Amino acid sequence: MKKIDKILYNAHVLTINKDFQQYPTGAVAVDGDKIVAVGDEKDIRSSYEAKENFDCGKRVLMPGLINGHTHVPMTMLRGLSDDLRLDVWLMGYIMPVEKEFVSREMVKLGTRIACAEMIRSGTTTFVDMYYFEEEIARETAKAGMRAICGETVIMFPVADANSYEEGLQRTEAFIKEFENHPLIVPAVAPHAPYTTNPQILQECAALARKYDVPLVIHLAETENEVSNLRKQYGMPVIPYIKNQNLLQTKLIGAHLVHIDEGEIRDLAKYKSGAVHNPSSNMKLASGAAPIDKMVKLGVNVGIGTDGPSSNNDLDMFEEMRLTAFLSKLKTQDPTSLPAKTVIYMATRGGAKAVHLDKITGSLEPGKRADIILVDLETVHNKPSFKRDPDGIYAQLLYASKSTDVTDVMVNGAWLMKDRELLTIDEKNLFNETDSFAKEIDEFLIKREGSLLSKLIAIDGATKDESFEVQTKVAVKDRQAVIEKLKASDIEIEAEKHYRQYDTYLMFNSTDEIVRYREDELINKNEEIESVRARLTLIGAAKQVESGKKDLLSRSRFIAPAGNSLRFYQEYFKPDKMVEVVKDRLRYHVIYKGLKFFINLDRVEQPAAGQFLEVKSTTFSSEDAESKQNILGEILQTLGIESPKEVREAYYKL
Amino acid sequence: MKKIDKILYNAHVLTINKDFQQYPTGAVAVDGDKIVAVGDEKDIRSSYEAKENFDCGKRVLMPGLINGHTHVPMTMLRGLSDDLRLDVWLMGYIMPVEKEFVSREMVKLGTRIACAEMIRSGTTTFVDMYYFEEEIARETAKAGMRAICGETVIMFPVADANSYEEGLQRTEAFIKEFENHPLIVPAVAPHAPYTTNPQILQECAALARKYDVPLVIHLAETENEVSNLRKQYGMPVIPYIKNQNLLQTKLIGAHLVHIDEGEIRDLAKYKSGAVHNPSSNMKLASGAAPIDKMVKLGVNVGIGTDGPSSNNDLDMFEEMRLTAFLSKLKTQDPTSLPAKTVIYMATRGGAKAVHLDKITGSLEPGKRADIILVDLETVHNKPSFKRDPDGIYAQLLYASKSTDVTDVMVNGAWLMKDRELLTIDEKNLFNETDSFAKEIDEFLIKREGSLLSKLIAIDGATKDESFEVQTKVAVKDRQAVIEKLKASDIEIEAEKHYRQYDTYLMFNSTDEIVRYREDELINKNEEIESVRARLTLIGAAKQVESGKKDLLSRSRFIAPAGNSLRFYQEYFKPDKMVEVVKDRLRYHVIYKGLKFFINLDRVEQPAAGQFLEVKSTTFSSEDAESKQNILGEILQTLGIESPKEVREAYYKL
Repeated sequence: MKKIDKILYNAHVLTINKDFQQYPTGAVAVDGDKIVAVGDEKDIRSSYEAKENFDCGKRVLMPGLINGHTHVPMTMLRGLSDDLRLDVWLMGYIMPVEKEFVSREMVKLGTRIACAEMIRSGTTTFVDMYYFEEEIARETAKAGMRAICGETVIMFPVADANSYEEGLQRTEAFIKEFENHPLIVPAVAPHAPYTTNPQILQECAALARKYDVPLVIHLAETENEVSNLRKQYGMPVIPYIKNQNLLQTKLIGAHLVHIDEGEIRDLAKYKSGAVHNPSSNMKLASGAAPIDKMVKLGVNVGIGTDGPSSNNDLDMFEEMRLTAFLSKLKTQDPTSLPAKTVIYMATRGGAKAVHLDKITGSLEPGKRADIILVDLETVHNKPSFKRDPDGIYAQLLYASKSTDVTDVMVNGAWLMKDRELLTIDEKNLFNETDSFAKEIDEFLIKREGSLLSKLIAIDGATKDESFEVQTKVAVKDRQAVIEKLKASDIEIEAEKHYRQYDTYLMFNSTDEIVRYREDELINKNEEIESVRARLTLIGAAKQVESGKKDLLSRSRFIAPAGNSLRFYQEYFKPDKMVEVVKDRLRYHVIYKGLKFFINLDRVEQPAAGQFLEVKSTTFSSEDAESKQNILGEILQTLGIESPKEVREAYYKL
Repeated sequence: MKKIDKILYNAHVLTINKDFQQYPTGAVAVDGDKIVAVGDEKDIRSSYEAKENFDCGKRVLMPGLINGHTHVPMTMLRGLSDDLRLDVWLMGYIMPVEKEFVSREMVKLGTRIACAEMIRSGTTTFVDMYYFEEEIARETAKAGMRAICGETVIMFPVADANSYEEGLQRTEAFIKEFENHPLIVPAVAPHAPYTTNPQILQECAALARKYDVPLVIHLAETENEVSNLRKQYGMPVIPYIKNQNLLQTKLIGAHLVHIDEGEIRDLAKYKSGAVHNPSSNMKLASGAAPIDKMVKLGVNVGIGTDGPSSNNDLDMFEEMRLTAFLSKLKTQDPTSLPAKTVIYMATRGGAKAVHLDKITGSLEPGKRADIILVDLETVHNKPSFKRDPDGIYAQLLYASKSTDVTDVMVNGAWLMKDRELLTIDEKNLFNETDSFAKEIDEFLIKREGSLLSKLIAIDGATKDESFEVQTKVAVKDRQAVIEKLKASDIEIEAEKHYRQYDTYLMFNSTDEIVRYREDELINKNEEIESVRARLTLIGAAKQVESGKKDLLSRSRFIAPAGNSLRFYQEYFKPDKMVEVVKDRLRYHVIYKGLKFFINLDRVEQPAAGQFLEVKSTTFSSEDAESKQNILGEILQTLGIESPKEVREAYYKL
């Protein structure tokens, strides 16, 4: 009798080996970190003597699940904001919050809570990509889980590196720290083609090859990404990364939603790993990846949850089920990706996709003991049909839940027994995460409370208050006014013709208004010369009457509008929106040595008629008073005899 | 202080009323079967005095979920067979098993196990459609759940009715039994347009209106269904059922995957309920229903799980999440069906879709107390952001699981407390369901074990063994043989020209072979006159040598092949398939008063050359011996002087 550490007996053992062997009354012998034997209970118990004999209570004993793509610290951002467009979600919430909150402490806390969730739901190995990856690796090792940890390399300054060069240096130091670690495999993680450039990718590939570590990257997640890459480099994603030598690394590509058959063949040829993230791809409306085709053409495909801020969990049971469902829908074929194939993709196949199949993914002598038990004696698993040996895979895939996982072992060590976590103090963790969430809430409440800070958060408008004096009157014929202007002693410095499309975003909670304006600059030939979009925060209506014809208004913060109107609409969530379309002839003029702006507007929507506006910036009430008088003179010069002030803004007409 | 039965306090109350009011420290007062008040804990506790004061431990307290479409007894068939085409699954497994096993006992057992699963996962009301619906209704009432129970009316003989007329009579009796029941609403359930006819639908509609009960039906589930209906009646599904007066009933339509905007507008106009079943529609590859458009155009949309044999569970949390995911994917818009909308669809909106919104679906005074508690103090729910009051809906939708449901009340009575079922003995149920599954397994093992019984199960071939004597020789020129035949004293009774496409389905486990043959009958003008497909079970190769030129072979069971080759391929799951294509000239002849068949074959695939076959059926070894001698004479007559017997079948050449 050989003496070993552990025998797990009285289990229905699914080996997921080459022959998908099963032992309905099976056992597994574990010594140190390794599996020494798998077989019928009688054979195992008559060949080995163990320190610990663990009764599996007839549960299913199978390889732990492999989560092929995630960002574990983002568990801290779970539910931060949902049901938004990718750009609103990313630029309006995730990036501003990450900018403020990503720290060593945050990633440690996020890793702990994520490991707790993953252990509970039967994951034993995961592939991560984030910042401060060395902290993630250390926390993961403390929790006892296996992981490929990819330190992010990206072209912008980020939380843990001011440049991509610094990112690469950090990555190399990280690789050296974790070389030969029993649980952690360090990796290079250039974020994506669209957040790097050819040089960065080439340097990442070189580093990955130098240390023979995996290279983790997001690939072809959205249609936009692919069409932009085509525009910039004249080719789709896989040929592009092939040119940067990425296919020659131990590649682990995530998403791969928008790739064609030629690209799939290249992934197969180079034995690149492809990780499918169905929840994330559906929730963010990225699309349905061609997984059925990838499998048929021999690509090593794994399954991932993506980060919990776009999922919103780390539940591989859900992800497996969605993998089958989504493929059947996409191919219009209910036989696509049957249960056995999908369970394989989350175990041995997933291990192959992340280049760890020599050590994990199936229950075979010599592999590490990464094992889970699943309780099928639950109401949603009843009844169980036994006649088809493959039926057990369908049961696990279509009926079982992650909460049916009762026991988890990684590398020969127990991490959970009978639903009790052994390496993580969950209760304390809940308090820590809740107070962290409270801080983020407070930060966002402050930001959401002020339109200005919301504006600053995304577009970098600077705080720069100014005041204006202005007057506005209706005119019958703006051409007649222009003729008077040209004939007068008012000096015209510049003259421009615009068509302006304004959308006013209004709120019940504040008098402030956000204006989104698209200016078409029209040239002499009546052609559009250029278009620009600007965002303006219009101050609370503190228009102060001062004299008869003049208005002193607290003025505006202006920012270039880099995103679409729909973006701002979702981001600011106005209670009301009003559109104004007008044709504007604009003159920069000098009168009595002072600068004024004269606008001659034809307001087409609402069909409000023609207007003359005269404005000047001001800096004090004295200056304002003197300019108010001059505004009157200018009106007289332009033939407006008894001006009837229009106090309402166009959007109120 | 008003005296009442129960106060549920210390809860985060989501009312899902018109304003989606929430009480973060809320309580609900319940008296008898009804909610008497919902509000802040302080207000409720200072106004009412209760017999039972129930501490909700800060959990979420919300309306119970409404499963808008299911077949609860089919829980007994969960995991019976998966990953198959709809026709293989339905005709190969579900229907043969239902034919054998659906009984009063089966539906009672299935209802009990389904109720246990639904209570555990937070469902308080469901809409059912099956056979022996009165038993389902009784068991449901015993379990304490609320349900709309639809007795199936269908044009074929089924387990509980030999004709649709009997089905209608049963339905009327059932309606009378359950009129005014506190939990059960009886309903008329014509199965679907494709399994009924206009008359049946009209009679169902009349019955539903006579008793003012809902009418439950499957609608536009597959593309096929719609195109067949168009062919038969010249219109799509909704105009068709409108013509049968179905829109004038309290309609509850399930699936509605393939409908257009005009049909959607009609559903909205008539306030018909539409129930979305995303798991089932994805798993069976039926398609993605236009739910976003339905919601926008004002249709009352609910969510259902469908039966557990096509899902494979009754988990409304999963179904809600998929509703959001699938709509985002379909519309390519991540803002489609946000969390609040989907939670509404599973509660108040669902109640509206099933015409029960006056009594359930939200927490409002006067409505029935159908309430669940959800525990968010679980790792996959952490952290919780609080700043956006709608965030709680996103958390429930995207992070929470059905297993977070801890307590369930229906009609003012507790059905589950702290995850303990109070009305169902789950453990006994597990044993009962497992032994029932064992019976089905044995039935299927027996069937699967014999190709013949598998064949009989689907196509009704009759057991009818026969034996043949035959001889086969290679010939150089079949035309020369025919000339000899026509010049001889052999009488030709009939003469036919076929092109035959044979596919042999072979198995490692048996010598039996299933042949799928398509015969093209060719007329004098070399045109195809007709095609027929047949399925033949070829007996184990017990070809007995008897004399030199003759073979005695155990012969064949023949059945018309109503389904496609791909169907049989998936159904029989052969280990190997071989195709044979040949051109056959077939003669029915009389020689010496006995019937023979003469085939002159040109075998094109494999390119094996030309052959002469002479055959006759036989009934005894004496008869066989005498016929064998005559076979030799016929060969001589046809100019085959020293015949070299070909013993191999064409598929082996």
